[in-house]
Amino acid sequence: MKYNSLNLELLKELQSMLAVPIKYDEETLERYSRDETAELKAVKPEVVVFPVSTEEVSDVMRFANRHLIPVTPRGAGTGLSGGAVPAFHGIVMSLEKMNRILEFDAANMMITVEPGVITGEIQKLADRHGLVYGGDPCSSESSSIGGNIAENAGGNKVMKYGPTGYHVYGLEVVLPSGEVTRLGGKMIKDVSGLDLIHLIVGSEGTLGIATRITLRLLPKPKYSVALLIPFPDIDTAIAAVPKLMTGSGVVPTSLEFMDASSIKAVCSFLNMEFPYADAGAHLIVEVEGSSKDSVFDDYVKLGESAIEAGGLEAFVADNRNTREKLWKARKSIAEALASISPVHCMEDVSVPMASIPELIKFSEEIARERGLEMIAFGHAGDGNVHVSFIKGDMPEERWNEALPLALEELYAKTTGLGGCISGEHGIGLKRKKYLASITDRAQLDLIRGIKRAFDPSYILNPGKIVDL
Amino acid sequence: MKYNSLNLELLKELQSMLAVPIKYDEETLERYSRDETAELKAVKPEVVVFPVSTEEVSDVMRFANRHLIPVTPRGAGTGLSGGAVPAFHGIVMSLEKMNRILEFDAANMMITVEPGVITGEIQKLADRHGLVYGGDPCSSESSSIGGNIAENAGGNKVMKYGPTGYHVYGLEVVLPSGEVTRLGGKMIKDVSGLDLIHLIVGSEGTLGIATRITLRLLPKPKYSVALLIPFPDIDTAIAAVPKLMTGSGVVPTSLEFMDASSIKAVCSFLNMEFPYADAGAHLIVEVEGSSKDSVFDDYVKLGESAIEAGGLEAFVADNRNTREKLWKARKSIAEALASISPVHCMEDVSVPMASIPELIKFSEEIARERGLEMIAFGHAGDGNVHVSFIKGDMPEERWNEALPLALEELYAKTTGLGGCISGEHGIGLKRKKYLASITDRAQLDLIRGIKRAFDPSYILNPGKIVDL
Repeated sequence: MKYNSLNLELLKELQSMLAVPIKYDEETLERYSRDETAELKAVKPEVVVFPVSTEEVSDVMRFANRHLIPVTPRGAGTGLSGGAVPAFHGIVMSLEKMNRILEFDAANMMITVEPGVITGEIQKLADRHGLVYGGDPCSSESSSIGGNIAENAGGNKVMKYGPTGYHVYGLEVVLPSGEVTRLGGKMIKDVSGLDLIHLIVGSEGTLGIATRITLRLLPKPKYSVALLIPFPDIDTAIAAVPKLMTGSGVVPTSLEFMDASSIKAVCSFLNMEFPYADAGAHLIVEVEGSSKDSVFDDYVKLGESAIEAGGLEAFVADNRNTREKLWKARKSIAEALASISPVHCMEDVSVPMASIPELIKFSEEIARERGLEMIAFGHAGDGNVHVSFIKGDMPEERWNEALPLALEELYAKTTGLGGCISGEHGIGLKRKKYLASITDRAQLDLIRGIKRAFDPSYILNPGKIVDL
Repeated sequence: MKYNSLNLELLKELQSMLAVPIKYDEETLERYSRDETAELKAVKPEVVVFPVSTEEVSDVMRFANRHLIPVTPRGAGTGLSGGAVPAFHGIVMSLEKMNRILEFDAANMMITVEPGVITGEIQKLADRHGLVYGGDPCSSESSSIGGNIAENAGGNKVMKYGPTGYHVYGLEVVLPSGEVTRLGGKMIKDVSGLDLIHLIVGSEGTLGIATRITLRLLPKPKYSVALLIPFPDIDTAIAAVPKLMTGSGVVPTSLEFMDASSIKAVCSFLNMEFPYADAGAHLIVEVEGSSKDSVFDDYVKLGESAIEAGGLEAFVADNRNTREKLWKARKSIAEALASISPVHCMEDVSVPMASIPELIKFSEEIARERGLEMIAFGHAGDGNVHVSFIKGDMPEERWNEALPLALEELYAKTTGLGGCISGEHGIGLKRKKYLASITDRAQLDLIRGIKRAFDPSYILNPGKIVDL
């Protein structure tokens, strides 16, 4: 693909259509050339723009089409696969200034926002109205809803609420051509035409730019309790997952696991004690309900089912303090990882739940063979595992050699188990070459055909998911 | 579009690749030229084929491509928009012989089936294992899972469980070219590439034919209770919907409404009494839970919130007998409608929940102006309303004139309220011309571009959703 560069004249033209000053100083370009994917090589844009309206987004896309200049849309830059990192220089379009909550509609239990709104703000606003926004990526305090939609972000509550896409009912989208279209709305059911909303959700900003987003809110469960359940080993822990659900008849809100190394890492990082710290694995199970009694009923049943299925104990965190402490341990693993070794590689492979133990054992073998350290934690209830390889004090050259081989083996195993290479972080730049090698030709052709239908000039976030 | 006809030689070639005899006797062609859309003009196929395997489906598609012959895939033929009714003769491909349950996987809480399996069978099998399949169209006893997927069927439990698509995690799909591709699997989270599964779900068999379907099952709630709540008028009833959810913190499994005319029709049809039969509207609220006590807690809260919001009374159906009686009333409305007037038109327009009263009042006005009778009932919790126009003893000529005008006005109003013209029945043949008139050009172009990427020869279910 041959794109044009932005000369001074073009920069002037670009500025003339935008209220907020464009930026192309070195520091800005540097900052907007990365997301939070530690091990990704940065590619600098030529300019960063900050549209404040749908019209401005549309104008930039028309400009980009006219001059054949690539545009990389960007939310809060917290991505973990390089989806918002340019592959071809050009324009980075930051949606951070489009951060207004446009409407809170209590009668329809819907909220309409701009893409730059931080997800945690939506959660808090819903909460104040006795409602809940079910999307809850671990990064909700820093990531934006537009980015969540681009990557179809997951998180800890997917078991009960589904991924980000399940909450999206209306989208205003600026297409690569600059045309604006409106999809869905505040109705819950819509089978009028093809489901373009859920095609755009998770497309990593390659098919269009969401400029108005309508999300469904649900009644807020009034009580919640978390259980911590140590198990002798990871096999027993994972085999317990379906049993404790069918045994109790309860859909937990969260069902997370941490292996022994994760517990060790986080205890040392937070300087905290953990009961049964030497257990092979821990499950955290959160359950919500509309009354104290019903939640009590549910967690007793879950706890009993867990013990029956080989759990060593069931610790109950039934007040805010103990619950937050428990979740702090789970949510600090990524930070603990960074403190052990700034250079590491956190994956988010996704497999059928029952295959988690086999996946983890295989990953441990890979790590051993390649001289890497590793830990594993994640979302037991949905099969999404954060296998994380750690560089530690391995020489950089050896790490650079060992990691790609380890990843290739991990992805091959994941695919062999009937899983996929990313459950919630996306393909982005990081996994593009792997996606091509494990996806059949017919499917790649369909993806390319769809991309062509949306973006014939291949200017919107080119270089992601597939090449044309 | 110019397609070829099937001469005897081609019929022989077709038969040679299929185990089950193809059929082209008049009676069969007649039967396979309709679904359950009463008012649709039948278009006869030239032949009906009954593949028994993915390979056979693929062979038929290659044959169709080779000879440029349209193929209309078909499930159980219970559709309500003509999605399985051929627009261009050719081949009807009935999936009814592919009706095996392929695997029940308790450890992953997933079931894999062929498309011809009747949905109710899946529900029953899940139930026997302490699990629930959340898809529940009113036609579950007669419709097939393949058809449910083609139309993204809704039903009474969408509030809690979402539409059919929310349960689909893996699909083996025969593409129009005859190529076979496998999408997703038994993992819950998947952001590896574009979400082709949910593009195919609801595409009315225009993008591919699902030949293996993997569905997620959930823990079965052990108890359920239904409430019947009469309201003085439809405004108060609908305004109560969000209030009773936020007031109680409970997500009901179902939240249905029936207007006064619906109640009258069904009482007369079933020869039953209904409390507050002269009330302006009734809500039926169903709530499920894991224990008797928790369900009791929830329905007391819901009932109290309903009374606070203007409900006249809250009747509790807490045993199987009373619950089934209540649901029988709701589920018999369509039959009651047919008994009043075999010629009628049941719509499934979908609007933001709070706009239901305005939609119904407008529909009553349309009906009055055009001399039609009408009733309205449906899914209050998700805004999906079965406005139904009734011919009664109106002369056929006048009905044929009045109905299209009434529909046009209804669809325009629905769109004006931010809704869509079909929430669960689909576009099919019935609503194609309307879809084109209310969808913006950019969106129609995208839909056409996607169709082209999947089906460049335009042979799979042509004439549905959009023309090329």
